[in-house]
Amino acid sequence: MTGRLYGVGVGPGDPELLTLKAARVLMSAPVIVWPAPLTGDGMARQVAAAHIPPGRIEIALRMSFDPAAPPPDSVYDAGAAAIAGHLDSGRDVAVLCEGDPLFYGSFAYLLARLGDYPVTVVPGVASPMACAAALARPLTVRDEALAVVPATLAEDRLAAALEPCESAVVMKLGRHLPKVRRVLERLGRADAAVVVAWAGHERQWSAPLSEVAEAPYFSIVLVRK
Amino acid sequence: MTGRLYGVGVGPGDPELLTLKAARVLMSAPVIVWPAPLTGDGMARQVAAAHIPPGRIEIALRMSFDPAAPPPDSVYDAGAAAIAGHLDSGRDVAVLCEGDPLFYGSFAYLLARLGDYPVTVVPGVASPMACAAALARPLTVRDEALAVVPATLAEDRLAAALEPCESAVVMKLGRHLPKVRRVLERLGRADAAVVVAWAGHERQWSAPLSEVAEAPYFSIVLVRK
Repeated sequence: MTGRLYGVGVGPGDPELLTLKAARVLMSAPVIVWPAPLTGDGMARQVAAAHIPPGRIEIALRMSFDPAAPPPDSVYDAGAAAIAGHLDSGRDVAVLCEGDPLFYGSFAYLLARLGDYPVTVVPGVASPMACAAALARPLTVRDEALAVVPATLAEDRLAAALEPCESAVVMKLGRHLPKVRRVLERLGRADAAVVVAWAGHERQWSAPLSEVAEAPYFSIVLVRK
Repeated sequence: MTGRLYGVGVGPGDPELLTLKAARVLMSAPVIVWPAPLTGDGMARQVAAAHIPPGRIEIALRMSFDPAAPPPDSVYDAGAAAIAGHLDSGRDVAVLCEGDPLFYGSFAYLLARLGDYPVTVVPGVASPMACAAALARPLTVRDEALAVVPATLAEDRLAAALEPCESAVVMKLGRHLPKVRRVLERLGRADAAVVVAWAGHERQWSAPLSEVAEAPYFSIVLVRK
């Protein structure tokens, strides 16, 4: 019997925003895998810590954090090989994923390598919903269209995706803040834009875009007509 | 002391996709409010049933289910008045919301009426993430843009929102299936489209758009380049 691969969304950062299903899977899977920086546990492991029993086999997928870099194939190749070894031995493997596993998540890179094994994805609370909750403002109502775009896109592509939609979420802000501000000003929507950083974390903050000079990578702009 | 208004996302339908925070809030709030059809408990109440202790004050917001109709103001007015009475008496009130409270949720209509009270929104797993999980296929990776559109929009507005984005989610399919098919065919993307109905429910199913002749209101098209 082959083991099952679980992609487990742990939500945006608040340990209480794990789902009951995520907690159950983590309690029973003998092997737990988590993405991490070169040292330390990483965010997903910290968020899920209370649900990982002692004595589990744990595999850290360590990589340097450079959002501009392509996915480090060698890390995913080695990680997938280690995971495949456990699955082949009949052990279930749970991969921790910040937010939702399939929404801008690195789980996609493992899935591409391990898709022939039995897979269960446990969806999680994604960051746009956590940001809207932090502001207690609707993300979308009724017939509104929503654009979700990474701030890394070129200015014209950002504008083209945002323009037709009443509501927009710009992800991964960081050093792209000036460009995003220019695009929203061009569209006449900068005044309605709000920055939410570290949604669901203790260090969460939010402010109107007009008052924000710098934002971390894990921040988002919400703008709704 | 005024009570606190909680908007509680219960996720897409699987009772295990409630968050730990949602479960905690429901265990402690003395008043629970849920949207419902004219008779019966409704989906949100059913999903959360295991977490609602006996003896709670419960308020059903009953309305006929017509996705084309405007929000029934009289129902929300009366519901908000009843909720305000409890909040004024110092009782916390938890409003159950399918999926996420602020993502196409009716909680927005209560928030518009009760926004002056202390509010906490507990975000939930939204249906696009549940649909991607059901298919075990990425919703978005790396620099992709995502359009989320309700199928109710006019054909040209659907096309305008979908065209600039690599990935798209069309919500609330139902009787708009033929229109959505025409738009995706026009954009050359019908072959990549998959329908997921009742994601997270027991009756969940999925199929390529080309094989689907009819779809319920609670179904979604995912299409990714």
